[in-house]
Amino acid sequence: MADLVVVGSIALDSVQTPFGKVTEALGGAATYFSYAASFFAPVRMVGAVGADFPREHLELLGSRGVDLSAVETLPDQKTFRWTGEYGFDLNEARTLDVQLNAFAAFKPALGPAHRAARFLFLANIDPVLQLEVLGQMARPALVALDTMNFWIEGKREDLLRVLARVDVLMVNDAEARMLAREPNLIRAARSITAMGPKTVVIKRGEYGALLYYQGQFFFAPAYPLEAVFDPTGAGDTFAGGFMGYLAQQDSTDPAAMRRAMVRGAAMASFTVEDFSLDRLRRLDRAELDARLAAFAQMVRLED
Amino acid sequence: MADLVVVGSIALDSVQTPFGKVTEALGGAATYFSYAASFFAPVRMVGAVGADFPREHLELLGSRGVDLSAVETLPDQKTFRWTGEYGFDLNEARTLDVQLNAFAAFKPALGPAHRAARFLFLANIDPVLQLEVLGQMARPALVALDTMNFWIEGKREDLLRVLARVDVLMVNDAEARMLAREPNLIRAARSITAMGPKTVVIKRGEYGALLYYQGQFFFAPAYPLEAVFDPTGAGDTFAGGFMGYLAQQDSTDPAAMRRAMVRGAAMASFTVEDFSLDRLRRLDRAELDARLAAFAQMVRLED
Repeated sequence: MADLVVVGSIALDSVQTPFGKVTEALGGAATYFSYAASFFAPVRMVGAVGADFPREHLELLGSRGVDLSAVETLPDQKTFRWTGEYGFDLNEARTLDVQLNAFAAFKPALGPAHRAARFLFLANIDPVLQLEVLGQMARPALVALDTMNFWIEGKREDLLRVLARVDVLMVNDAEARMLAREPNLIRAARSITAMGPKTVVIKRGEYGALLYYQGQFFFAPAYPLEAVFDPTGAGDTFAGGFMGYLAQQDSTDPAAMRRAMVRGAAMASFTVEDFSLDRLRRLDRAELDARLAAFAQMVRLED
Repeated sequence: MADLVVVGSIALDSVQTPFGKVTEALGGAATYFSYAASFFAPVRMVGAVGADFPREHLELLGSRGVDLSAVETLPDQKTFRWTGEYGFDLNEARTLDVQLNAFAAFKPALGPAHRAARFLFLANIDPVLQLEVLGQMARPALVALDTMNFWIEGKREDLLRVLARVDVLMVNDAEARMLAREPNLIRAARSITAMGPKTVVIKRGEYGALLYYQGQFFFAPAYPLEAVFDPTGAGDTFAGGFMGYLAQQDSTDPAAMRRAMVRGAAMASFTVEDFSLDRLRRLDRAELDARLAAFAQMVRLED
């Protein structure tokens, strides 16, 4: 068992889907990631909130054993806020408003325990901040990174600088195509490995996820759900399950990554069943194990 | 090893994709199906062509051992023609023109060998014709059916009549949703089982295919291709690989169906690599075996 550091947003999300809405609910990439990863390994969060951030949210993460010592509360700032909506095609969010707030001013300073962690996840945030955190790490065994169209278009040079030092890129198909400037997804994945990450994980929402490494592919299906309420956080919980499992196994080998993909897909399948972290909060280990067994069954070829 | 009957179109296709075009090339659901299935089991085609149908096309199918005794050449008719095009999103064809020609006049009359076959595929064609062929069969072990939006909307009652007597429905996601009148794919699959077919296979193009039976799912990925030239016939070769394998195994059990899904996905992955049946014509058994091994590797969880 190794430990795991994540840097990324801790947010208050206002989300509308065809099935309901929430206002200023707990969200943020680092939040979803940490909660999911906590089922597998010890997690240390790096991030910032404003003075307005409800204490109960930090207590919830603390109750999962998440180390919050590097989560700064900036007294003169407000918490990061995201407002978005989904139509009946739940595959794509429309962002209505983003307020960086605390993250605009945030300068992370990692302590010795964080610097020594063997697994690092750079959640989707300014690549300059991702590079700042990566630069403070001693010698991680595996670094994974998520990003989005905003940074791919707006801060491509910074992003390429951090990508050169990363082992795993985790993005959705549109982001992979945009980053590689190549419409064919398979060629895009291969071209991304020349930028640094030897492994590329492509998240495709209801169609599952694809792992590419050393010319080989692995597919993890999405769990077939009869009701998807809110896809917000699915990608980050996928990353949490994936990285949490690798940290738990303290392994970076291809077989562990395949099993990690299924952990990621399982965690994501719970997240989308309710708003915010509500479904994850009701999740217990037995339910998770049952869903992992169902995943294995979904791709099992032999009797 | 059991044998297999297919009824469906035998066509001359004119297709344009971003990567090229063909004019009056060999096509049709029964053609693609039979060629693919011939890698696994003996196939008997039921259909009609016009006097204008090039003899070399029938010779090609004959060279694969396909029984053409129930393919009628109607002297006063032209062959079925389909004209379509694809944009860069190769997932959906735009039909520009359809001429039923020989199929408008076709009245199938099956001989004893056909009537006795244990496996029957009712390719996408008028459900009245599907029912006519099904009605002539003695006692098939397994009947599968494909259909499309045109029949779901235009001949729903006839389609429901034939569906009630079918074991496996094979359609794409949009067709499954339309037939079930239910946007959620999982609920749609379950609702279709109440119409007759106990098994539903949902084809999702580049995202693979999904098998639903008895409340359980099986997922076959699509083969990750760096170049897709023409998706025409992918669904029919999928069906050919699927049904051909079941006939070869003379089995209708769930484990055989899972393995059949992968045979279908493998056959489809070759079809789309070139226009018409051109890639299938170059395919040999060793290449097929290598791709099947790659499929198994793509979902393998254990070392």
